[in-house]
Amino acid sequence: MRRWNGWGDESDLYDLNEDARAFLRERVGEGHPPRDATLDESLQAVPASRLSGSARFSVDPRLRLLHARGQSFPDWVAMKAGRFGPVADAVACPASHEEAADALVEAQQQGAVVIPYGGGTSVVGHLQVPAGERPVVNISFERMNRLLAYDERSQLATFGAGTPGPQIEAQLRGHGMLLGHFPQSYPFSTIGGWVVTRSSGQQSLRYGRIEQMFASGRLVTPRGTMTIGGVPASSAGPDLREFVLGSEGRLGLLTEVTARVRPLAAVEDFHAIFFPAWEPAVEAARAIVQAEVPLSMLRLSNEIETETQLRLAGHPELIKWLQRYLGMRGIGSGQCMMVIGVTGTLGETRRMRRDALAVAKPYRGVHAGKAIGKGWAKNRFRGPLLRNALWDAGYAADTVETAVNWPQATATMRAIEAAARETFYDQNERVHAFTHLSHVYRQGCSVYSTFVFRSAGDPDADLERWRRLKSRVSAAIVEHGGTISHQHGVGVDHAPYLVHEKGALGLDVLRAVAQELDPQQMMNPGKLFV
Amino acid sequence: MRRWNGWGDESDLYDLNEDARAFLRERVGEGHPPRDATLDESLQAVPASRLSGSARFSVDPRLRLLHARGQSFPDWVAMKAGRFGPVADAVACPASHEEAADALVEAQQQGAVVIPYGGGTSVVGHLQVPAGERPVVNISFERMNRLLAYDERSQLATFGAGTPGPQIEAQLRGHGMLLGHFPQSYPFSTIGGWVVTRSSGQQSLRYGRIEQMFASGRLVTPRGTMTIGGVPASSAGPDLREFVLGSEGRLGLLTEVTARVRPLAAVEDFHAIFFPAWEPAVEAARAIVQAEVPLSMLRLSNEIETETQLRLAGHPELIKWLQRYLGMRGIGSGQCMMVIGVTGTLGETRRMRRDALAVAKPYRGVHAGKAIGKGWAKNRFRGPLLRNALWDAGYAADTVETAVNWPQATATMRAIEAAARETFYDQNERVHAFTHLSHVYRQGCSVYSTFVFRSAGDPDADLERWRRLKSRVSAAIVEHGGTISHQHGVGVDHAPYLVHEKGALGLDVLRAVAQELDPQQMMNPGKLFV
Repeated sequence: MRRWNGWGDESDLYDLNEDARAFLRERVGEGHPPRDATLDESLQAVPASRLSGSARFSVDPRLRLLHARGQSFPDWVAMKAGRFGPVADAVACPASHEEAADALVEAQQQGAVVIPYGGGTSVVGHLQVPAGERPVVNISFERMNRLLAYDERSQLATFGAGTPGPQIEAQLRGHGMLLGHFPQSYPFSTIGGWVVTRSSGQQSLRYGRIEQMFASGRLVTPRGTMTIGGVPASSAGPDLREFVLGSEGRLGLLTEVTARVRPLAAVEDFHAIFFPAWEPAVEAARAIVQAEVPLSMLRLSNEIETETQLRLAGHPELIKWLQRYLGMRGIGSGQCMMVIGVTGTLGETRRMRRDALAVAKPYRGVHAGKAIGKGWAKNRFRGPLLRNALWDAGYAADTVETAVNWPQATATMRAIEAAARETFYDQNERVHAFTHLSHVYRQGCSVYSTFVFRSAGDPDADLERWRRLKSRVSAAIVEHGGTISHQHGVGVDHAPYLVHEKGALGLDVLRAVAQELDPQQMMNPGKLFV
Repeated sequence: MRRWNGWGDESDLYDLNEDARAFLRERVGEGHPPRDATLDESLQAVPASRLSGSARFSVDPRLRLLHARGQSFPDWVAMKAGRFGPVADAVACPASHEEAADALVEAQQQGAVVIPYGGGTSVVGHLQVPAGERPVVNISFERMNRLLAYDERSQLATFGAGTPGPQIEAQLRGHGMLLGHFPQSYPFSTIGGWVVTRSSGQQSLRYGRIEQMFASGRLVTPRGTMTIGGVPASSAGPDLREFVLGSEGRLGLLTEVTARVRPLAAVEDFHAIFFPAWEPAVEAARAIVQAEVPLSMLRLSNEIETETQLRLAGHPELIKWLQRYLGMRGIGSGQCMMVIGVTGTLGETRRMRRDALAVAKPYRGVHAGKAIGKGWAKNRFRGPLLRNALWDAGYAADTVETAVNWPQATATMRAIEAAARETFYDQNERVHAFTHLSHVYRQGCSVYSTFVFRSAGDPDADLERWRRLKSRVSAAIVEHGGTISHQHGVGVDHAPYLVHEKGALGLDVLRAVAQELDPQQMMNPGKLFV
């Protein structure tokens, strides 16, 4: 069963061995395991519904609680402390586009605010229930989780918006096809959620971001249903798909998504390449992507993340052998690990590997083989489980990510980490901050930083710590001209920073679009922009 | 000097030899050369300006006339007959972003409508001057034609919006780079025009459409200047670049464009492949693009266009040899010609060619070598010059284009051609209609049809013929679910059909965006949507 107050399935544990714990003690100090609220305690705090329920809408407190929060830091603190705050008054789980449209009409008649619910994996507060006079409902797509149509000749597949990653790929595999969207949230996040948050998967280098996959869709707005897109390309005015991508529920319910899919590849491998230091490594990353070596992935960890990953991996003997080998090749402390993905026919994957290694060579990149890459691939969706283990050991974790052009990459990374590390100097608390470039483009790259610090042992104090950290690192991002999010979206946590990216006029435009389709401002208010 | 009432430079002639003329006589009948108005006659009909002129705005009748029309069929009839109709009251040619912004403010103070002018190559009426009470001004970007900044590390180049294709590539070549946007209008059309009309170049298979090249830009709106885009990718809300792409001047003046550029390739060749008939040819096109052979171009002519191109090419002896060879390979009448582009290192181009030919083989594709491809490449921007020669010989020509998913490709093509051919049955006039797929995608392809028919010898009758033809072929496009334009934009000619693609709500959204940035509706009114 899925955890009601954390990440993943309850049976899925991340083992934090003694070596890993020693590393954490060394970096941020001894953690103090918390005492979390139970589900029963949390349920008792759920306020009474202001709606009476209907054939479409359930007012069951448990169902309402389970749809009340996502995976942002404030969501976690709320769930762990059993202080959920406002909870939707009712939840609908339509099974089709038509039922979803009917649910929206019913919500409209009730004067309710609607929060669309996909996989519940938002890390920026997309699901936050607003406090206020108006009743609030969740419309959840969990029953709309199937392949609805497949056009073999156009390589198009239509899914219910609530179809999560594994169901998408399982249903396509029967046709010999795949979508190829693999964000870390893949086991739970949904195709509809990916579209409305402009998601990006780990292998976007080959498969593209969700923007490139999204061919068409149906959007139920408060003013009626729109069919968006459908042709391979068009010069007939602005592309309405791009208005829906990133709209975060403000325009309506995205009920169905038609995606561009492609044949399964014969071979897929991941290789590790180690570099002696950050500067040559980032130059190699740039050189590889600008040489257009058609890798399916390129991910580069900085020296702190490289060390952290190797220490937390739980295989100290293997790491010793690796270090012996790297040492012989002139790579010691300060080493940075790159993982590349090669996907295609056997010949193609060999060529990609050869070409990438050739470009990396002048930057002193050393090929460390497939074993580490295989290990990375095996655990590629398990990263968030570490957060559970950390929390139970008394540590809090959060991430931020941005994207910048190449000249700003290193400065942005250093500034984010420095801002994080210095946040709690006054409290004598340390933050362990480490970073990787998760996506690379010819123009630039994403910068993805993780922070680990000790829980305060008190929800208000935890939240206060997080607020200080978040505002400092966000300011560093804005100062370096980065986007406030490359792959997580805006939600409520990033909304204050959006104006730096879109400008005041740009925000006016986004508001005008929402106002046009949602004159009563019933759709997910407060998210994306105020 | 550029032709004031036709396409291209006055010194640039398209030779229509006797064989070509015989072919036209055979297909549509004997043409009757027209008597066109002279520039002096046309100038005499220019109405007096309603503005008094200023340091920024000239009221010179010749300058106003030269900015009054584009290259749409109605534009041609107007220019040839010297019946220009409404002409802007004044023309500004700012030399910088700041001067353009100042010109917009002055226009605003005058209560004037603004028509932005790029290369003057629109074929759908983007430049049409509205009749009415409000004065009208052109703001032309012809002096904003330079490379303004180059970021080598991010492979970004910033240009003045009025920089035409050849100047872009000449300035980039000095850095060893290229943009790679090659629409047929390339010698005259501009980077700003490409963005606001969502242009696509002949080699978009390698270089992408302008959407993929457009990294950022500056937009002067009636409410102030916006800076749009700038990072490699973002999930922070809808992408405002996509609001500007295809906005056709409705939102403001796009003054500067930063584009993603890349290194010049070492080798570029074009190869012809002939197929025995249309059906296997279109299946081969689909198979090649879905196999993701990284060609830089794939263009497939149907049987009528293949015959027409070979007849009009002016090399009857060479064609005879070609046909002898194709005949030996089992390819006779009904043959369809595909031209593929291979661009990259020598090894890459060899591999692409080999892979494309291997995929084409089961469809009975026969490689006809590089000579025909070379001929195509040599004349790749000269197609529009044929329109001059046809006109002088008494024939009118126009084109339509759309994009559809693969299952609709053939039916759409046949329906467009049939609709065109039957248009003038009641007048005993024939239309010679032929088609190629100009762009291919995994999802589908564009369908690009050309029509040649006899001029009526009278502007009103010519326009009436065109209106009937245009409305019939547009109806066929809409009926088959095609976009009303894959690469030409909407302008005034396609505006009535946009609702089929965007829906009524979609049009409301586009109107709301324009209204937000341009509350006085001064920016290019009547274009894109009413």
